[in-house]
Amino acid sequence: MTNRYPAIAYGVTIRAEYTNRPGMLGKVTSAIGNAGGDISGLDLVHSSREITIRDITVNARDVAHGQQIVAAVRALPEVTVASVSDPTFLLHLGGKIEMRSKSPIKTRNDLSMAYTPGVARVCMAIHDDPATVWNLTTKSNTVAVVTDGTAVLGLADLGPAAAMPVMEGKAMLFKEMASVDAWPICLATTDPDEVVETVKSIATGFGGINLEDIAAPKCFYIEEKLRTALNIPVFHDDQHGTAVVVLAALHNSLKIVNKKIEDLKTVIVGVGAGGVASARLFYQAGMRNIIGFDRTGPVHQGRNFSDNSGKQWLAEKTNPLNFRGSLMEAMEGADLFVGLSVSGVITAEHLKRMNRDAIVFAMANPDPEIFPEEADPYVRIIGTGRSDYPNQINNALCFPGFFRGLLDCRAHDVNNEMKLAAARAIAAAVPSNQLDEENIMPNVFDRNVARNVARAVVEAAHKTGAAQRSRRRTYGIGAYR
Amino acid sequence: MTNRYPAIAYGVTIRAEYTNRPGMLGKVTSAIGNAGGDISGLDLVHSSREITIRDITVNARDVAHGQQIVAAVRALPEVTVASVSDPTFLLHLGGKIEMRSKSPIKTRNDLSMAYTPGVARVCMAIHDDPATVWNLTTKSNTVAVVTDGTAVLGLADLGPAAAMPVMEGKAMLFKEMASVDAWPICLATTDPDEVVETVKSIATGFGGINLEDIAAPKCFYIEEKLRTALNIPVFHDDQHGTAVVVLAALHNSLKIVNKKIEDLKTVIVGVGAGGVASARLFYQAGMRNIIGFDRTGPVHQGRNFSDNSGKQWLAEKTNPLNFRGSLMEAMEGADLFVGLSVSGVITAEHLKRMNRDAIVFAMANPDPEIFPEEADPYVRIIGTGRSDYPNQINNALCFPGFFRGLLDCRAHDVNNEMKLAAARAIAAAVPSNQLDEENIMPNVFDRNVARNVARAVVEAAHKTGAAQRSRRRTYGIGAYR
Repeated sequence: MTNRYPAIAYGVTIRAEYTNRPGMLGKVTSAIGNAGGDISGLDLVHSSREITIRDITVNARDVAHGQQIVAAVRALPEVTVASVSDPTFLLHLGGKIEMRSKSPIKTRNDLSMAYTPGVARVCMAIHDDPATVWNLTTKSNTVAVVTDGTAVLGLADLGPAAAMPVMEGKAMLFKEMASVDAWPICLATTDPDEVVETVKSIATGFGGINLEDIAAPKCFYIEEKLRTALNIPVFHDDQHGTAVVVLAALHNSLKIVNKKIEDLKTVIVGVGAGGVASARLFYQAGMRNIIGFDRTGPVHQGRNFSDNSGKQWLAEKTNPLNFRGSLMEAMEGADLFVGLSVSGVITAEHLKRMNRDAIVFAMANPDPEIFPEEADPYVRIIGTGRSDYPNQINNALCFPGFFRGLLDCRAHDVNNEMKLAAARAIAAAVPSNQLDEENIMPNVFDRNVARNVARAVVEAAHKTGAAQRSRRRTYGIGAYR
Repeated sequence: MTNRYPAIAYGVTIRAEYTNRPGMLGKVTSAIGNAGGDISGLDLVHSSREITIRDITVNARDVAHGQQIVAAVRALPEVTVASVSDPTFLLHLGGKIEMRSKSPIKTRNDLSMAYTPGVARVCMAIHDDPATVWNLTTKSNTVAVVTDGTAVLGLADLGPAAAMPVMEGKAMLFKEMASVDAWPICLATTDPDEVVETVKSIATGFGGINLEDIAAPKCFYIEEKLRTALNIPVFHDDQHGTAVVVLAALHNSLKIVNKKIEDLKTVIVGVGAGGVASARLFYQAGMRNIIGFDRTGPVHQGRNFSDNSGKQWLAEKTNPLNFRGSLMEAMEGADLFVGLSVSGVITAEHLKRMNRDAIVFAMANPDPEIFPEEADPYVRIIGTGRSDYPNQINNALCFPGFFRGLLDCRAHDVNNEMKLAAARAIAAAVPSNQLDEENIMPNVFDRNVARNVARAVVEAAHKTGAAQRSRRRTYGIGAYR
């Protein structure tokens, strides 16, 4: 990946040692500037009459650029690079999350209530009335973030250990955006049935299951099995989180171009987890003319998808004219292109064939199917997954608030009404007077989004009978009620 | 369970509303005092010219006693009990633990390093060099506290939900005593092989596995299978935590009575998880003359234990004279009695038969095999699991520091040398000038204990080749090293 601008995610901290003489620091910073580096910190480590040592933190566009900047500093006379470190890796040292007690255990009284002997009465209360596990334990606020590491960041089968940093990051977002306690569970198996059995086995302590970075098509099977088996909500974020934010982006785009979702012709390239779920949610929202493409070509009824329930659904429910042509042909007159595939699958030639006021969501990670600079002349609206372009379509707008809502109403399942409501809530977070072609999505750091999504999910859960929270008071629970 | 003294673990908070007149509060507090209650808090809720409302927190000896105290207040004229609550249950509302981020995600820079795009480089680094998962994730400081709920508090098969409060309490102790991050995993299966498969499957994100409250004999099988399968330490606390603290208590007792461990005759009643593990560790420490009793009688070679590897070991390695008589006969000349069974299995008659300077560890939960008041005339030293008697023999002295040590040296297994070293470290925490018949164990809140246990475990791990921590520097890890 290459960023448009130098960024801290590709930053370096260079420990530079140089002769203490006027103008030396200027030479170092000029060398960095000439190499395209963007200095974000200049910390003095040591200064004597002879030498100065500084930690210089420099944003770079990518790793290769960072290395060029280091080389430029190394090349200066009278300057030594003592060490080079990486702010992103330093942030990860020892991990990003921890467990904390909500109350201290400093005295024997604390211990006697939180642990033995007092805790025995709480255990017996749960044993006698199993529903009280929601009141008396962390279950009510806790989500397991479960992966098998087969599609880390939607990208690659890196295995469960390499997936840990993503799951920890996800847990951080859950807490920061929606006060949900999430814990990563990285599975050392890629067998779908073993994944199902493991999650079923550990579910007791959690109020919800967030499946993450599990490859298609097994993600469909795993989620369906778990939804049936468990009485807590199961949500595969790569599917539904993506679908919800894409639909939110579409809602706001349609306000601008003044088209109706029912009338759109849509082409989706990449029908893995996110592509299939987006098509399903579009369908729920009233869209019918959807043509999905995988590596082989368009998904149509002439192909055999017995091993992939997601594509099977697409073949049955979408592509109403049973289109069998090329991507170039499919783009003819399309109103919406959704890319959930890889960089470069579409070109300006494809976009030229789209309908007026074309909308493109090029979500490939890390580089989009087509970069906005290139697409701009041919489309009305373009969104990507990236933060260095306008219209970032980011799952982080959905999953924290979505689970906040699920937990708040103790939903026993996730349904389409909730997803549709969440998409509307995200779209509504962009005030109509701020809505334009370059501002279709709310800011990821807008704290109202999670709150509004949660409220929308709770309301949908109550409407659909998926909420199981009883309204009884919890005060006075236990032996003395 | 009944406490000797009123305790907060059985406390009640009574919201009393009474006529605002001099002497009324005195009547309320006298009624509570006469009922044997011990007032620990008197909070004013509301006061007007006519009435006063107060929350009165009262320690009680047990639940029945708490109810008697409430009844005594209710019986007073001009006093209304508006509500009664339970401090222990209030402490548990919403659970006792939470997940916290170690660094904030407040800005886009934070997000870009902790999550995408920066996190992708960290994932790739772990994928390229799997050992870095120890440096770059929470694995290095995290323990899964795993139960199937079949022996909650060593007592009862209450199921995984009812076990949650104990596991959360355990996690609190891990953090408070040894800065270990622990997360509860309560399994919805009691099948030993399913327990094994589940734990194998989730182990990636954890630096160690603390098995907890799993019934014997399957706990032996589960632990052994997991030790073989995993390259992180697996420690069943009900076995080894118990064995370590019992051996520590014995070390200090033997200093007082001036006997040698090799020369002791020991009777153990209750050869479940804790009993078998204690016998095994005694054996490692040099003891040979051990007679274990289960409900059927003494464990000897004439019985068939093919379904219980723990008792099988006892039959083969202990009871050297192949004793087959009664408990009363076995106690003849015994130096040490260890009870890990139920209240009432021994009486003064049993103790009278013991050798001079008899040592009794009556660890049954919640009430000991024999209460200290009753045993005192016949024994030199008595210890129990309770905090309301001297000589509390508490696992909390072992497990936090033990895992601190295991994590610090990245041990791949737990071995006997570590357990023996931990027992010596706990015993050594009682200074010799403070050691006497009523002070053989350190205080649970003595923070030096966990530190010393950790150090002892690390040293033993290095000696035995179980430590796998490489000493390479982590600074400069990643793309720019």
